[in-house]
Amino acid sequence: MTSTAVRDRMDQTLIDVPPGLANVVVAETELGDVRGLEGFYHYRQYSATDLARTHSVEEVWRLMLDGALPSPAEAVDFAAEVRRLRAIPAEVGSLLPAIGAATSGADQLAGLRAAVPLLAAAAGMRPLFDQDPAGRRADALAIGAAVPTVLAALHRARLGLDPIAPRADLDHAANYLWMLSGEEPREQVAAAVNAYLVSTVDHGFNASTFTARVVASTGADLGAAVGAALGSLSGPLHGGAPSRALQLLDLGSGPAAAGYVREQVAHGGRVMGFGHAVYRTEDPRSALMKEVALGFGGPRVELAVEIEAAVLATLEELKPGRALRTNVEFYAALVMEAAGIPPAMFTATFATARVLGWTAHALEQAAAGKIIRPAARYVGPAPR
Amino acid sequence: MTSTAVRDRMDQTLIDVPPGLANVVVAETELGDVRGLEGFYHYRQYSATDLARTHSVEEVWRLMLDGALPSPAEAVDFAAEVRRLRAIPAEVGSLLPAIGAATSGADQLAGLRAAVPLLAAAAGMRPLFDQDPAGRRADALAIGAAVPTVLAALHRARLGLDPIAPRADLDHAANYLWMLSGEEPREQVAAAVNAYLVSTVDHGFNASTFTARVVASTGADLGAAVGAALGSLSGPLHGGAPSRALQLLDLGSGPAAAGYVREQVAHGGRVMGFGHAVYRTEDPRSALMKEVALGFGGPRVELAVEIEAAVLATLEELKPGRALRTNVEFYAALVMEAAGIPPAMFTATFATARVLGWTAHALEQAAAGKIIRPAARYVGPAPR
Repeated sequence: MTSTAVRDRMDQTLIDVPPGLANVVVAETELGDVRGLEGFYHYRQYSATDLARTHSVEEVWRLMLDGALPSPAEAVDFAAEVRRLRAIPAEVGSLLPAIGAATSGADQLAGLRAAVPLLAAAAGMRPLFDQDPAGRRADALAIGAAVPTVLAALHRARLGLDPIAPRADLDHAANYLWMLSGEEPREQVAAAVNAYLVSTVDHGFNASTFTARVVASTGADLGAAVGAALGSLSGPLHGGAPSRALQLLDLGSGPAAAGYVREQVAHGGRVMGFGHAVYRTEDPRSALMKEVALGFGGPRVELAVEIEAAVLATLEELKPGRALRTNVEFYAALVMEAAGIPPAMFTATFATARVLGWTAHALEQAAAGKIIRPAARYVGPAPR
Repeated sequence: MTSTAVRDRMDQTLIDVPPGLANVVVAETELGDVRGLEGFYHYRQYSATDLARTHSVEEVWRLMLDGALPSPAEAVDFAAEVRRLRAIPAEVGSLLPAIGAATSGADQLAGLRAAVPLLAAAAGMRPLFDQDPAGRRADALAIGAAVPTVLAALHRARLGLDPIAPRADLDHAANYLWMLSGEEPREQVAAAVNAYLVSTVDHGFNASTFTARVVASTGADLGAAVGAALGSLSGPLHGGAPSRALQLLDLGSGPAAAGYVREQVAHGGRVMGFGHAVYRTEDPRSALMKEVALGFGGPRVELAVEIEAAVLATLEELKPGRALRTNVEFYAALVMEAAGIPPAMFTATFATARVLGWTAHALEQAAAGKIIRPAARYVGPAPR
């Protein structure tokens, strides 16, 4: 605890705010914002869904970290810089099969949480507060570049398969798909996954992003911040489990989906993939993912469109005026499925993009140089 | 994100509070409080330093977790319950030598951060929100009991030594010392370390405790919460590096220490072990640790007393009225040294106690059932 914090704490009275700190401003950010009423979110002033349609993950990563979209020459330099960092050190890589086995019964990201401190140690990451901006940036690149490699290796280890080395001639999305399957993706598939990943890099001050900033505010190393964020991401209240949305498709038809929705609503249950939107308008991520899914076409996507329409109509009938919308999970699941990503890797795929947002936020927080440390009110019996 | 949080966020305007959320109430707690003006802190209404003089770690652990100090019979039951949980599963234990080697250049707790997700997976820990109170409590016992075993094994692995199995006939402190060295500690040594550990279980709403509660508030599993707290603990602004305090003793005499203090103050530097107290009065933990150190006696402790007096007198002369006091690190370092704990394990020893506080806080937070999720203010250029 810093002496400033101590003085604050002793001299000032406790400040009451809404439960869970809802709407309480804990940080200023230049990284982006979500405008729920407008159906719009942006990264450093650029519409995120526009970026997803027009830019690569690496270009957006560079925007988040360095503050500007790269020129073509800068994009080449940045790509060269990060692609060198994809390979994981042997002392970490050799442990991944055992880590994958030890966490095979846990959530998808438990193995990554175990690997992150090892990656940070192997890269010699020091506390953020002991480093200049260049050192912090190098750590952010190292973690962001290595996470997809670790996740692909863990996935393959669980299947009893050897890891596949990253390829420097493939961009972020294509290389990730390559490391998962050993097959070079078609251009449409790589573009679809690129769009999903770009749209997933950041989305306001969600719980995992907040956690990354809390840990970074203590000055800890970037591995500590990312590991903590992964922990929050695993929480049921964080939301997000895209693989669940696919279960709706198992119902097989619009009428069957409508019946399922009636049943769920009658029992006070939820319909996964619907009704959790941040937006009062359409979720711009959902619109993007639907567009991408329609590009694939085929009976599976046609079924999804039919089921979506039936679910929305039934929800509007049963809960008029609530304007429950399709959320990002529904079509994101379709897109990942069409790209050949196994459902067991949906959340991991999300994490390969979101880690870029977390690290950008952690660096912004470290630059602010102030610990985030609220207070609690003691409500137990008086001391004896 | 829950739909309630979403609604809050869309309907309400941002709320400004002091930077870093200082004094902002984020939780209610029955676990304890720090009264800086009175030089007093307590666990569930019992003076923590009184408990450190009279009760075992296990009894205080039971107090924190179950809400009451145990009767003698209940203490026996609780001890039997937790001592069974000390052994680490083979699939985790077999990885510790490699984890210790991979993190040998990192901070002391990086290896533990890597091991915690593996421990959680091996114990089958599920998200806190998917469990009833009994399930959550079982997870808290499992983590609290296993952490000392992991840390001792990692320490020995770094020295090229085999781990030493825990002994169910030894209490928490004595068993920890046994697993470090393979020697059964003298009664005075075990009591000294017990006092240190009891006094370290909790201390207000510090940064690592807050982090544990943030992650627990998402409903994540207890391993995620503890791993994140360990990350915050590694941050320089969290404070705490007891091994640094020993460096003052290397100065060799009171006059030399006084000269060192003059030099530090002239250059605007800090004197480790002094002046970071939470308390305006004497830090009650420092008083306790000094009492324990004096019980050991010997030339090393006499030197410490001489150096402490010289430092305090010089600080009072150079910074009159600031009332800079000895903080807990100074005599805690002496006590751990006298107990034969290597300086490289001081922070790890701290963590074996604090994890009991973190888990109690995480369970209290999970019971509250509300995500901690503040907001950020976008301050960059307007979107295009």
